[in-house]
This record gives sequence, C-alpha cells and structure tokens, in this order.
Amino acid sequence: MTLVTVAQKYRQQSPLVFCLTNTVVTNFTANVLLASGAAPAMTNLPGEAGPFAAVASAVLVNLGTPSTEQLRAMDEAVRGATKAGTPWVLDPVAVGALPVRTEFARKILAQHPTLIRGNASEILALAGYQSTGRGVDAQDTVSAAISAGRELAQNYGSVVAISGAADAIIDATRTTLVHSNGIGLTGITGGGCALGAVCAGMLAITDDPFEATIAAHGMYGLAAENALALSRGPGSFASAFLDELSLFAPEELLNLRLQEANHA
Amino acid sequence: MTLVTVAQKYRQQSPLVFCLTNTVVTNFTANVLLASGAAPAMTNLPGEAGPFAAVASAVLVNLGTPSTEQLRAMDEAVRGATKAGTPWVLDPVAVGALPVRTEFARKILAQHPTLIRGNASEILALAGYQSTGRGVDAQDTVSAAISAGRELAQNYGSVVAISGAADAIIDATRTTLVHSNGIGLTGITGGGCALGAVCAGMLAITDDPFEATIAAHGMYGLAAENALALSRGPGSFASAFLDELSLFAPEELLNLRLQEANHA
Amino acid sequence: MTLVTVAQKYRQQSPLVFCLTNTVVTNFTANVLLASGAAPAMTNLPGEAGPFAAVASAVLVNLGTPSTEQLRAMDEAVRGATKAGTPWVLDPVAVGALPVRTEFARKILAQHPTLIRGNASEILALAGYQSTGRGVDAQDTVSAAISAGRELAQNYGSVVAISGAADAIIDATRTTLVHSNGIGLTGITGGGCALGAVCAGMLAITDDPFEATIAAHGMYGLAAENALALSRGPGSFASAFLDELSLFAPEELLNLRLQEANHA
Repeated sequence: MTLVTVAQKYRQQSPLVFCLTNTVVTNFTANVLLASGAAPAMTNLPGEAGPFAAVASAVLVNLGTPSTEQLRAMDEAVRGATKAGTPWVLDPVAVGALPVRTEFARKILAQHPTLIRGNASEILALAGYQSTGRGVDAQDTVSAAISAGRELAQNYGSVVAISGAADAIIDATRTTLVHSNGIGLTGITGGGCALGAVCAGMLAITDDPFEATIAAHGMYGLAAENALALSRGPGSFASAFLDELSLFAPEELLNLRLQEANHA
Repeated sequence: MTLVTVAQKYRQQSPLVFCLTNTVVTNFTANVLLASGAAPAMTNLPGEAGPFAAVASAVLVNLGTPSTEQLRAMDEAVRGATKAGTPWVLDPVAVGALPVRTEFARKILAQHPTLIRGNASEILALAGYQSTGRGVDAQDTVSAAISAGRELAQNYGSVVAISGAADAIIDATRTTLVHSNGIGLTGITGGGCALGAVCAGMLAITDDPFEATIAAHGMYGLAAENALALSRGPGSFASAFLDELSLFAPEELLNLRLQEANHA
Repeated sequence: MTLVTVAQKYRQQSPLVFCLTNTVVTNFTANVLLASGAAPAMTNLPGEAGPFAAVASAVLVNLGTPSTEQLRAMDEAVRGATKAGTPWVLDPVAVGALPVRTEFARKILAQHPTLIRGNASEILALAGYQSTGRGVDAQDTVSAAISAGRELAQNYGSVVAISGAADAIIDATRTTLVHSNGIGLTGITGGGCALGAVCAGMLAITDDPFEATIAAHGMYGLAAENALALSRGPGSFASAFLDELSLFAPEELLNLRLQEANHA
C-alpha cells in the first residue's frame, strides 16, 4: 500500500487501540486517537487486560507510570496480544533511568513487540547500552541510537522507532528517516506517548509494520507542523494539534520528507 | 421546579460532587464540573470514600478504568451514599465488553443507583441483554435500548439516561428524549463521563431525579451546541465547551427541544 | 539573587521536578512545568520513587488522590529526598476533610518539607486547627490561616505558602503577600496543584526557599493575569495560561506587587 492508502484505511476502519499507558497522558492519548480517526479504550485490570488484548485491533504498552497492578495487566495484555496475533507497541518510557520498569521492559521484550517506540536514550538503555537520559528526556541524539535500534530490530523481530529532530524508523535491514518539524510536540507532555498509540492503530491497518510506522509518524508529524503555524505557545499548540489531526488529509502524506538508508 | 430554576439553583448552591471515575477523564470531568458551577472532589481510597460519600452533595461511580483498590472504594462510597441518602450515579462504562466491571456493576445495582447513565450498548448489557459494544463505543441505537432502560428503571427504582443522537431519559413510567447537537462531544474523550458528573450535581438540587437528569442533559447539550459553532476540530471544541458551560445562561433551557412519550 | 535572576536561572537550568501528584492534575502539572521551562517526571512506584528523589532536582508530594501504593512511594520519595538533600514540597490537598491523607501528612511533616503549599483550610488543618474546608475548596481566608502557617514554619523549619486572593509566603520570621489576579486559576482544576510543582522547581534554583517560593508565585500569578486578558472562560484560560507561562519574560517580575509584614 502507499502511505496515503494506509492513512485512508485507518480513517475508514477506525482501529480499536487498547492503551495501557501512563496517568500523565491518558486523556491526551485518547483525544489524539479520536482526532486521528481511531477508537481508544483503556483498562489496567488483570482479568480484563488479557481478554481485551485478544479482541482489540492493537495494544499499546507504555511504561510511564506503572503501578504493581498495571504491570500485571500489561504482562497479561502482552500475552493475550501475542496469542491472538494482535500487534502491540512497547514504549519504554524512562527505561534506563528507573529500575523497576527497566527490568520489566527487558522481560516483555521476549514477547517480541511489533514495534518499539522511544527516544534515543530509552532505545540505547533498552538495548543494554549506557544512556544519559534523565527521567523522560532524551539526552542522546537519534543518530547515536540507530545501531542500538538495529540490534533490537534484529534480535526481537521488531520495528524500532526513535523520536527526535528527525524520527528514525528501523527494521532488520532498513532505516528510514522521517522529517517533520515536531518542535511543538516537545513543548507539551505526551507528544511521544500519544504517537505510540497512533502507531499501534496503524499496525492494525497493514501487514507491513515498517510502512505502518512511517505512516503514523508522517501523519502525526505533518499535523504537528500544521498546528505549529497556528499556535503561540504550548496551550494553543495542543488544541490546534487535535484540530489538525482531525482535519488531516491522507493526501498530505505525498509531501512527507523521507530519507532512506540501507544498513551498513 | 422548572428546568431553568433547577439550573439556577445548581449555580447558586455549587454542589460538591464526589467522583470515583476513570483515569482518562479525571481532569476533564473536574473542569466540566467547575465550568458548570459545581465543585469537584475525588478520592479512590478505602477509608476515605465511605465517609466522604456521606458528606458530599452527590457521588459519581464511573467504571471506566477500575483498579482493585478503586473498586473497594467504590463499594464503600455506594454504601456510604446509600446510608446517608446521598444521590449517586452509576456510569457502567464498557459493561458487557469487559468482565470484571460487568460483575461489579451488576452487584452494586442492588444498592439502587439514583441514576444510571450510559450509552445504548452499556444499558443493554447492564440489563442482561446481548449488546454489540466494543470498548467504550456504543454499537447499538438509543431506541434499541429504551425497553432495557425501562426494565432497569422499574427493577431498581433508578432513572436511566441513554446517550446518543438524542438522549433518552427514562423512569418507571416515562421516557423523554432530549434533543441537542452533541456531535462535538463524540469527538473528544470523556464527553459522556463528564455528563454523568453534571447529572450527579443536578441530583443534589431537586428531589425529582427525572427532572434533574433532563436539566443536566439540557445544559450540557446546549453548551455543546454553542461550542460547536465556535470550533474547527476537537481541540478547539473541548476548550470552547468549557467556556460555553461557564457562560451558559439557565434561561437557554427554555429553548430545549424535548419529546415526551408514555411507556407502552 | 533578585527574583528576575531566579526566574532566568530556572529557564536556563530547567530543573527536573519529580511529581508524586494526584490523578486529576498530572497532565496539567506536567504541561505547566514544561511551559514554565522545567522538566517534569513522575513515578508512583516503590522501588523507583526513592532512588529517583535522590537524583531529581526537586520533589513534589501532592496528596490529592493517594492510592495505598502511592503513599508508600511518597514515603520512600520523602526519605530519599531528605537523605540526598533534595528540596521537597508538601501539598496537603484536602487534609482535614479526608482522614487517611490527614494522618499521612502529619507523619511526613516530621521529615521537614522545604515548602508546604496549600489553601487556608488545609494549612489550618495541617497545623491542628479546626478548618471549614470541604474537599479541595478553602472556606477560610488567607489571613485567618497566617498564624497557623507561622507555627508550621517555626515547628518544621519549612516555608509555608497559602494560596488565596493574595498569596501569603511565610517563614519563621517573615510574611510576604504576593498580589496577582489569579481568578482565572480558580476556574480550572489543578491551579494550586501545578503551582506546587513550579515552586518545587524554583527551590532547586536558589538556596533561599523563601525567595524561590515568591519567584514561583510571582511568575505563576503574572502569567495567569496575562492569560485572563486573553480568555473568555476556563477552557480558553487554561490554554492561554500555558502559552503565557512559556512566553513569560523574567523581567516582568519587576512589576510584581509584594507586601511585606514582620510577624507580630
């Protein structure tokens, strides 16, 4: 499929994205999914998470603010998704900086996430390298994390997306850089977290997770560019971003600036 | 009282609405209550929920994202409310689609909620019928759920409100349809959840829960219509909706389009 | 330092503020921190909270909606902060009105918060006096709580900030009133909670917590005044407030209206 077709089908099919995510971004994530054309749903309860992962279109596991009970639900959701063949996204928020989630993230890697999406510091840490992240902020550049991303892609069969000035989308053999002006997204909380949810939705649309991830980053990044032109600060940006996601025309993806590189 | 008088008293008395609600909509719900003229308060802790339900003006129990601990607090809150005569609202989010909350919702029905507010699929499922909801989305029409709503109203002495293209307000003997253009509310998360909180506040104003529920739906729906005219997408709608709730004049309820039907 | 210098350094250093806060205001608090120039981070997990409090620039403990697990994490965070010399803020939300948090707040007072920030009813209750708060609303005036604030300041070596029509900043020997038109902040949820987070960030900038607290209240209050002029209700205010925080020029603090009073 072309990226335009993927985005069109996303709107038509409205994938049901089951999000196990952090308490800071629940509302923004749900609103981003709705604005983009998908349907959000959340539960963090063991006994519900497993069965729901089996019927949802896709699952997002975001490690931002786990509780003990949510970690159990995440474990259940990942097993449910894997068993049912539901695509799932791992967002390893603050992995490397905080211990409990770091151990948990390494454990569920063994379940082969369809996509791993994080910033450079998180991807480096998840792959076992030294990173310099503090909390949720990346202190490493995207280019410094690409080889770590490739290792994760090769070891776990996952697509890896690294958010930064340009976003790198990586699989076992390819790296594509997606260029957009995402500066507005760095001024609000949840810019990366909600992107993970949109990626999850796109994974439900096409069997090619590499293409799905590029489509998600493209739609998200271009909507952010559109919103930036209409905003005077982070408050008006957040509002305009939801508007622009809902007004986004799939054909705009024809203008997406992509840069492809084969792995060395 | 007339609907206008109910809304005026709501503003004057600023009912304290104790919300046990889901993590996706806490912020929006609190802001909706404030904008409408009420006072929000939340705790999900056993040991606090029971005593607080006894002193609050009204209680909202929304099953969107329960934790094990929150379910215990909800159980305590419902008992505290019942014992103290505090009106309470049950919002059976995703009942029918997810198992733990479904069982819990059926259990606390025995405590006779003053109001049950949900979408058509949730009302059907709560009444024991087959529904086709997926997650939080209704896949059934309001009209298909009216007889199920009437059964709940008759069996538990509750008012039942079903949200949809037109909202149906039902008690043991009457059904009133409240018409408003709520399309903006379907584009953001929490549109229904926050309405449940406003309903709870209105229940504290008048001894007639049927009238209170119509007043809440009327104020909410008309403010949403006003906001829609000022918005270009879900981000600007959410912002305009809070503005319009705060600017809402109770006299606007004179223009509310109601349609009454006796039960067959 | 002058207040202008404190605010300039805050922007330059971007303190990492670890927030253990309530589920209603997580998103707004993180966005306020980002807009003001700081970096937010959250975890509520025992095993993560202690180590993170030791490396963060400052810690906020806000008791708005504690879970049993979050209370354990808060206890751990406070001990970690104290041991590492990290400044920390206690926001005793609804203390006096709700029992579990009241007992917990009194317990962690023994760890000497750098700053205690609350409304008049909460400060009175924390100091052991009768208050008339209901839920999160203050029913007492700031002036009625100043002597209680002074007692807390003297007994625990803390700065105490009482939010109201004018905000009172108190230490063992001084009281300064910070005047600004914060009426917009009373129309949205989290206005006080997010201020506590900004205060925490400022505490990381200067060794003088009294000055830091005045700088935080000044920046916050003046940004709220600027936003009020641009808004037509609470929705547009919330958006404009984040914009104005991000556009705030530290030099605006030269116009801050302060009123100093020695203790009797």
